[in-house]
Amino acid sequence: MQSPVALIPQLAGHVVAAGGKRLRPMLTLAAARLCGYEGRRHLGLATCVEFIHTATLLHDDVVDDSALRRGLASANTVWGNKPSVLVGDFLFSRAFELMVEDGSLEVLAILSRASSTIAEGEVRQLLTSNDLATGEAAYLDVIRAKTAELFAAACRIGGVVAGRPRAESDALEEYGMSLGIAFQLVDDVLDYSARQATLGKTIGDDFREGKMTLPVVLAVARADATERAFWRRTIEDLEQEERDLDEAVALLTAHDALTEATDRAKAFGQQAARALDCFPDSPIKRILLEVVDFCIERAF
Amino acid sequence: MQSPVALIPQLAGHVVAAGGKRLRPMLTLAAARLCGYEGRRHLGLATCVEFIHTATLLHDDVVDDSALRRGLASANTVWGNKPSVLVGDFLFSRAFELMVEDGSLEVLAILSRASSTIAEGEVRQLLTSNDLATGEAAYLDVIRAKTAELFAAACRIGGVVAGRPRAESDALEEYGMSLGIAFQLVDDVLDYSARQATLGKTIGDDFREGKMTLPVVLAVARADATERAFWRRTIEDLEQEERDLDEAVALLTAHDALTEATDRAKAFGQQAARALDCFPDSPIKRILLEVVDFCIERAF
Repeated sequence: MQSPVALIPQLAGHVVAAGGKRLRPMLTLAAARLCGYEGRRHLGLATCVEFIHTATLLHDDVVDDSALRRGLASANTVWGNKPSVLVGDFLFSRAFELMVEDGSLEVLAILSRASSTIAEGEVRQLLTSNDLATGEAAYLDVIRAKTAELFAAACRIGGVVAGRPRAESDALEEYGMSLGIAFQLVDDVLDYSARQATLGKTIGDDFREGKMTLPVVLAVARADATERAFWRRTIEDLEQEERDLDEAVALLTAHDALTEATDRAKAFGQQAARALDCFPDSPIKRILLEVVDFCIERAF
Repeated sequence: MQSPVALIPQLAGHVVAAGGKRLRPMLTLAAARLCGYEGRRHLGLATCVEFIHTATLLHDDVVDDSALRRGLASANTVWGNKPSVLVGDFLFSRAFELMVEDGSLEVLAILSRASSTIAEGEVRQLLTSNDLATGEAAYLDVIRAKTAELFAAACRIGGVVAGRPRAESDALEEYGMSLGIAFQLVDDVLDYSARQATLGKTIGDDFREGKMTLPVVLAVARADATERAFWRRTIEDLEQEERDLDEAVALLTAHDALTEATDRAKAFGQQAARALDCFPDSPIKRILLEVVDFCIERAF
């Protein structure tokens, strides 16, 4: 994050110091160790993964006008949209510089592909927002691209850096992909069900932006005429009043939408765990299995 | 630019179809040919250069709230800021994917470094905006980073792809760097002196944003007390009235600031031309020398 332009480490440091779960870089580190890697390259590559993630957070918060991130004021709230966009660009470029220093074209291929897929997913999400016709398949396409691809890439490069057979990298990628989908499903449930102080971001953001996350997709599919009118007004037309979020939560609960989305997350979690079957039992494998449980049971 | 998400090629295509001078990719093509390169790799790399440039344009127009680009409504005006930020990210990632396909770590190093320097330069520009204390050295630092680095990188990779001795790549980089500085100096003069229909972007944008470009830097250095008050109100406090742009142009003219900035551009142009001394005369060399004249004499 170093730069002679002081605002860059300052702004990037604000996001990084705020914490976050550091899940993605941890996946790179753990995947490399699961494959028996004993060098130090995975440290730099885990940094690349977190830089790419941080860059997308900075741009997301601008795109979504988010006020809170990791329990602190978001960078765009503190410094405005302009530096947030540009420091995102900087971190993104720095990630590629670090990959070049590492010198693996295979890693560069994996992470450049993941980056363009993330951007595609974010655009797709914009297009499905406020569109009640969005179904479960379209929703899954969005979260696979915007979230799960980077989880998958983070895991895969851990295998690649260890120089192990392709089957192991494939298994790690599959683990990361299913874990990432489960993670985002839970994220989307938490946006309606978490306690704000625990979550570290604003509750109800998805609702206020009219995002078609799975809970809403399920509730809309089961809505009667009155409920449909509610969703049309709040999600499609974004005409919201203060008590609408409570009403939305009540409808999601009445239709079991939050429980069912969580069940879907659990199924993807099981798929993630199964993907690691080809690895023998080890402390690091048990940690990666615990990560699955954490992602599903987390309250933040 | 292809993507299953139709908005991506649509928005990117809008920017590309609007034209532009295509100077940067042309520099890669011409530099490769000047070095005797006869393959096809320079085509893909020139595309990477233009993608990186287009990504920065999309983000710049969001950051600057620009309404016009290349004579058409800017992408942020047509589709809003969100898709502009995200399609910028997409093009940027695609550029790196294309470089990975090309397979040269040296090219990846040059363009990833140029990209992070551009972002640094853009942040630096934000920080010097509205700051009357900005001097000529700080201004040159900004334009070197935000503009000239990509010109230099575009030229250098032309030499790298040809596999010629380092001295030739160095000479091409020096040509690109000086040309880029000259180009941006002229750009900053045109923002006060061009005819809007010819320029293809809004006249007076820099003034309205309070950017400290060289003409203003020079005029501020020569200002009397009344003039200083004018610059403080318009550039520092951004309290502008309708006739202030005319008044600014009058002051720049009175202090020869536009002529002098143009003279500085000419000097950098001569430096660019001299950098090519190590190459024997050839049609392609003559074209690269003509490019210098074009960049200085252009009206758009």
